[in-house]
Amino acid sequence: MKVTVLQDIMSANDRIASKNEDLLNKNNVLAVNVMSSPGAGKTSLILETIKKLKNQIKIAVIEADISSTIDAEKIIETGVPAVQINTGGECHTDANMFGTGIEQLSLKDIDLLLLENVGNLVCPAEFRIGAQRNVMLLSIPEGDDKPYKYPLMFTTVEVVIVSKMDYLPLSDFNLDQFEKAVKGINPDAHIFHVSIKNGTGIEEWTGWLKSQLRLI
Amino acid sequence: MKVTVLQDIMSANDRIASKNEDLLNKNNVLAVNVMSSPGAGKTSLILETIKKLKNQIKIAVIEADISSTIDAEKIIETGVPAVQINTGGECHTDANMFGTGIEQLSLKDIDLLLLENVGNLVCPAEFRIGAQRNVMLLSIPEGDDKPYKYPLMFTTVEVVIVSKMDYLPLSDFNLDQFEKAVKGINPDAHIFHVSIKNGTGIEEWTGWLKSQLRLI
Repeated sequence: MKVTVLQDIMSANDRIASKNEDLLNKNNVLAVNVMSSPGAGKTSLILETIKKLKNQIKIAVIEADISSTIDAEKIIETGVPAVQINTGGECHTDANMFGTGIEQLSLKDIDLLLLENVGNLVCPAEFRIGAQRNVMLLSIPEGDDKPYKYPLMFTTVEVVIVSKMDYLPLSDFNLDQFEKAVKGINPDAHIFHVSIKNGTGIEEWTGWLKSQLRLI
Repeated sequence: MKVTVLQDIMSANDRIASKNEDLLNKNNVLAVNVMSSPGAGKTSLILETIKKLKNQIKIAVIEADISSTIDAEKIIETGVPAVQINTGGECHTDANMFGTGIEQLSLKDIDLLLLENVGNLVCPAEFRIGAQRNVMLLSIPEGDDKPYKYPLMFTTVEVVIVSKMDYLPLSDFNLDQFEKAVKGINPDAHIFHVSIKNGTGIEEWTGWLKSQLRLI
């Protein structure tokens, strides 16, 4: 009984995810699902991406949180349209929530849609939402053993951003070992080293985003 | 239908949690459920606690992970009994998994049982497992806004450990603001400032643990 219900939920989710993706493609919108643990720097990365790209491309943001609107308020201050979705206790965004967020945006006025998912290394990786690209951040203070502990997240993304690189000198994070572990489970992943504080890697990240925009 | 199934699961979980707690009380074992985001320092805190207390009290550890046995191996090296439970994709430990872990331990030879829950600020707070105390870590690099974003976790614990205090000089974490936010939703919470690297706050934390051992 429990299993059947769960399968129904997942296949219903995937149907809505496909509808979301069709709608985005039809409107030439590239949606990027940004995932990480709490506090790995998703909001800071999104704010920096807006700063670098908002004069070149039209950006919008969907902020997903269990509760609160703190992050959406920060985005709106930049002048970019932002929608807040609260998951009401759920540890991830599902396709239906993402679809509800999309409906509130004027898609024809958007090139790049960034979704900040709930801070969590587990559940968000289990739900397709219909974004064409999936990206995760792993911050230096979290440690280099995370690909072994949260393998699904590391295999469902096209990009792994190692964030808070400025903390590296204080940390025993082994970058080589980490990258080998990531490539072992996801050989095609792009890995960028980023620090918002000192600007490391931002060009590479925004360059990748622009290259993906040309593909859709 | 979905809601009914969920309610059944939750009430079955709570029944098993109560059985776990009875068994622990009967054997004079204090179980502490340790929760946090991935990489906030649960394993390091447990290793340091073992180092400080293992000559005074009998400790055992249950390690819960989605996959891998990395952490249990580190515990076993200290000479303390450790059991690994893999949640098989689940983002939390439920009462049944915890019960299975307890069964593998010789309770009469244990004073303090530490459970390292799955790294996650959401799901572990939703499941009672039967531990008499619940503790969470929030590391400085995660940022001071987390009580607003993950309120359930902050309200279900008796102790909030602010970990990686050595990162504070590099960070814009506002300790006063953070503590006000925690006290606002959980006025009775004990807050300890800890750094495993430089030894800050370890005495206060182990002192609290010892005080709780006298209570059961």
